[in-house]
Amino acid sequence: MNLVTLRTVREVRNHLAGVRHKGKKIGLVPTMGALHAGHASLIQTARSESDFVVVSIFVNPLQFGPGEDYLRYPRPIEKDLEICSQMGADVVFLPEVAEIYAAEQRVFVDVTRLGDHLCGPFRPGHFRGVATVVAKLFNIVQPQRAWFGEKDFQQLCIIRRMVQDLNFDVEIIPVPTYRDADGLAMSSRNAYLDSDDRAAAPTLYRALTTARAMIENGERKAAVVKDKASRIFAEQLRIRPQYFEIVDPVELQPVDEITSEVRIAGAIWLGKTRLIDNVSAALLKHFRHVTCS
Amino acid sequence: MNLVTLRTVREVRNHLAGVRHKGKKIGLVPTMGALHAGHASLIQTARSESDFVVVSIFVNPLQFGPGEDYLRYPRPIEKDLEICSQMGADVVFLPEVAEIYAAEQRVFVDVTRLGDHLCGPFRPGHFRGVATVVAKLFNIVQPQRAWFGEKDFQQLCIIRRMVQDLNFDVEIIPVPTYRDADGLAMSSRNAYLDSDDRAAAPTLYRALTTARAMIENGERKAAVVKDKASRIFAEQLRIRPQYFEIVDPVELQPVDEITSEVRIAGAIWLGKTRLIDNVSAALLKHFRHVTCS
Repeated sequence: MNLVTLRTVREVRNHLAGVRHKGKKIGLVPTMGALHAGHASLIQTARSESDFVVVSIFVNPLQFGPGEDYLRYPRPIEKDLEICSQMGADVVFLPEVAEIYAAEQRVFVDVTRLGDHLCGPFRPGHFRGVATVVAKLFNIVQPQRAWFGEKDFQQLCIIRRMVQDLNFDVEIIPVPTYRDADGLAMSSRNAYLDSDDRAAAPTLYRALTTARAMIENGERKAAVVKDKASRIFAEQLRIRPQYFEIVDPVELQPVDEITSEVRIAGAIWLGKTRLIDNVSAALLKHFRHVTCS
Repeated sequence: MNLVTLRTVREVRNHLAGVRHKGKKIGLVPTMGALHAGHASLIQTARSESDFVVVSIFVNPLQFGPGEDYLRYPRPIEKDLEICSQMGADVVFLPEVAEIYAAEQRVFVDVTRLGDHLCGPFRPGHFRGVATVVAKLFNIVQPQRAWFGEKDFQQLCIIRRMVQDLNFDVEIIPVPTYRDADGLAMSSRNAYLDSDDRAAAPTLYRALTTARAMIENGERKAAVVKDKASRIFAEQLRIRPQYFEIVDPVELQPVDEITSEVRIAGAIWLGKTRLIDNVSAALLKHFRHVTCS
């Protein structure tokens, strides 16, 4: 009912020690704020699956590269707090940068292999920044569970792998991507789009779902699927595609021949705005039978 | 009284959940086994400063380089368990390698700057391996406190910095180096030394204490102090010095001019055995007065 806003690590630890002492299970929804319906769905899920919900709001400078949108990233704090309150969060952790990076950061969480494709090559240091800040948040909040959106699928996989590889005692729960009626995945960055770019933006999801349909209909060659996606993007002159990849869903390595479940992921530029999205795809069983017989 | 030996992460979590539920403060002493009087002193300190003491014994492959002594590292498990029991440990965590590295490790704890000098350049990947396994142990055991020997000073500083930079909720407690009567720092690797090498080994500590005395007596030039150490090593033909450095005690960067507290650290080879040691040193106050007046 009463949303508590805490700004320091010490306050969070003190507050949560009391909560933990009562035997409550703590859930964490890490965000960079600029909350939209996708975040609301995450917080709502967390609310229904834990005794006590902490939402962190922190625009993490470490995960932005030089020339990226760290400074212009939207920070509508009042609205964010209202959404947290409406969705039933108990605590919002809203630290200053100097609280999270008190001294010069010397120790980082480093991600190999899972960061080598998709967004990784285009955003050097990004996943190191994400993994490092999430490790910090896990150690500050010490949640039993944490919710991450599937929209940032590579991030989700990396956090899941971090939990496994560093033995964090946290259960990672993926939440399906929340979409507008025309398919566009909810993103805080959608706010950057003018109306023409907003109209073109669902092309990314259309390319992804077209690719999925091809795979479900028996196409096994990644090159053929990717070629179709290229042609979809080429029809929409506003779009500059950055990548469109078909990868295995664990190690995130590109596959040439699609033989089991894959993740299809893409990134596009619309003006100065970069959008990403992804879907899962698998050969349907009857097609596997057909090709084996 | 009754030492419990646990071999899996799940067993440790289950066992410690009960301990934590009783409100006991858990202390961790991470070791690679081959326990000696230095370790005994760590465990004893932990025993006197916590309700429940966990000793981990794990020869961590990730912190050994190719050609290092991972395979021949001593593993006298029965004797180790006896020492843990005698020193009053409650639990020994004794995992197999496959328990700690269940899947191929993709996410690591990476150390910048603090690993750039001293042992760092001579053992590439070593401190990443140390920081990664200690992060794992912290997440598995979730101790309130953990004890580390000052003998491995660079490791101690890096773990302390990891705790700070990743916000681990663990207090790191340094324990002074335990020495034989002739000054040689206790190390599991001393067992490798034949009698001639053992006789030569205290030269390292003698070089360190000579350097400390020079600084306490007013010498400010690191080069002069290091030159004296070189001459001490040169008198002992069995010794091949690897490094002898004077660094600041936080960021571990070499200093040319000694103006405040420093750490003096060295590494030597005796046959196939590599030994390290270090001491603290500071200009004595009356010398600062003399040089200022």
